[in-house]
Amino acid sequence: MNQIKRVAIVGGTHGNELTGVYLVKKFDRAPESIGRSTFETITMLANPQACEIGRRYIDIDLNRCFRQQDLENPDISSYEAQRAKEIYHILSSKNTEEPSLIIDLHSTTSNMGLTFILASQHPFNLQLAAYLTSVYPHLKLLASTTNAQDSPVLRSLFELGGTLEVGAVPQGVLDASLFQQTEQVIGTILDCVEAYNLGTMPVVNNSLTIYQSIRAIDYPRNEQGEIQAMIHPQLQSKDYEALNPGDPMFLTFDGESVLYEGKSTVYPIFINEAAYYEKGIAMCFTQKQIVSYGS
Amino acid sequence: MNQIKRVAIVGGTHGNELTGVYLVKKFDRAPESIGRSTFETITMLANPQACEIGRRYIDIDLNRCFRQQDLENPDISSYEAQRAKEIYHILSSKNTEEPSLIIDLHSTTSNMGLTFILASQHPFNLQLAAYLTSVYPHLKLLASTTNAQDSPVLRSLFELGGTLEVGAVPQGVLDASLFQQTEQVIGTILDCVEAYNLGTMPVVNNSLTIYQSIRAIDYPRNEQGEIQAMIHPQLQSKDYEALNPGDPMFLTFDGESVLYEGKSTVYPIFINEAAYYEKGIAMCFTQKQIVSYGS
Repeated sequence: MNQIKRVAIVGGTHGNELTGVYLVKKFDRAPESIGRSTFETITMLANPQACEIGRRYIDIDLNRCFRQQDLENPDISSYEAQRAKEIYHILSSKNTEEPSLIIDLHSTTSNMGLTFILASQHPFNLQLAAYLTSVYPHLKLLASTTNAQDSPVLRSLFELGGTLEVGAVPQGVLDASLFQQTEQVIGTILDCVEAYNLGTMPVVNNSLTIYQSIRAIDYPRNEQGEIQAMIHPQLQSKDYEALNPGDPMFLTFDGESVLYEGKSTVYPIFINEAAYYEKGIAMCFTQKQIVSYGS
Repeated sequence: MNQIKRVAIVGGTHGNELTGVYLVKKFDRAPESIGRSTFETITMLANPQACEIGRRYIDIDLNRCFRQQDLENPDISSYEAQRAKEIYHILSSKNTEEPSLIIDLHSTTSNMGLTFILASQHPFNLQLAAYLTSVYPHLKLLASTTNAQDSPVLRSLFELGGTLEVGAVPQGVLDASLFQQTEQVIGTILDCVEAYNLGTMPVVNNSLTIYQSIRAIDYPRNEQGEIQAMIHPQLQSKDYEALNPGDPMFLTFDGESVLYEGKSTVYPIFINEAAYYEKGIAMCFTQKQIVSYGS
């Protein structure tokens, strides 16, 4: 791979996820803090109108607007669809010889700590992920099974980098500790890219644990589509912990437990994410994958 | 005081505070659970349009629309102002001989646990509060210094009852444990009203601790009004704990601590409430008052 020529730090893809919004504003005040010698760093507030009013989106979820077919469809015209096309033209580099890397900043009401969602399993990304987890042992790695071509999320425009997802933090709230942790991880990613370009990237002998999304689970609902149960208190905030057959998942409004009836252990994430109620997602199941990586 | 003739349980005054919304829906499915022999219990979703789209409000904050002068002003016509007038006509009983009581259900992103905000310090309310804290020792009592006549909040239409404020829970999220705790407290209030009407209300010898709101504190802001600092990690989630002169309050985006420079100990609440960023409130200071109460 050629040298990485550009890193894009994106905040405010969702306008009510303030960590990224305020980090981008901070970087814009002090661009030297994200500058390195071998590549250009650009910042972007992806959904400025949504940031302005502190809402996730105006018309539709921007982070579901990046399917190739939608980007090429002139008939789609919501604010976010148009904005996605603009972002695509500004950021996309897939067809150039000069690779660029994305850091898309998100937060979640789920207790996911620091999570790096890999844009792809490109060797550089695995090398980066291995280094990040060596520096931040509590950082979790997540991969999606969706083919990048069909994926609607911003990071799918890139092979390198990914999404930094931090929580638990409510929508519309800044958590100082998560803000600082996110900023540190960004700095480490920038240092890694610089080191890669200089041929001095640290090689970490490591076996990586990558959580692989397998499917989304909805709340129990009635015929009118209304939810009938809440996340069970025993599962609340237990993102990335093992959910075994027979463990409680939901609690109905009348106090009855709904158990996990699958046959194998899974590791739920995005448990009780506020923005996912409308998407019909109570949590996402993942499998734990060990990826051997090293020199 | 005459017997209490009606209890109004109100949810969804803010459409993204789901605890109250789903409790009201539950009570409507099983009205017998909130029925008692000596009074009528009614339920209400105060802001149905905001509940429908899961947002705090449509035009303006409904819970700031109940000033007497606004209720009587025919020129105010936002959705919430109109809704406030409707609610006033349905619920208000101040000028009748038949007292009624309100339980207005709210949630907060602040770590306030279970809080009962008293509509007034009417002797019945103190008796109720004393009983509630004897059953739920972790329940906090809060009083506002605002004169009821000038107060814009729904509970100010009533002398009896108040607001149940529970947290920390993000906007748009149901927390099963807080849902059940809120439901229990409501049941206990209903039982208390029934006992009062029957002349069997338990008398609790008690000295009540009531937190008294004294003032709201804004975030440090620049000349453009943008916030310059976050709640300090050492203060985050420390609602109702003592803040002493010299203690850290805020952390700037550059990592500098901003200290509390007041001269006396205060007890902050509503620390980092999402809905208060736009109101210019980072937290509210309270004083701890001991109110002797008993037979």
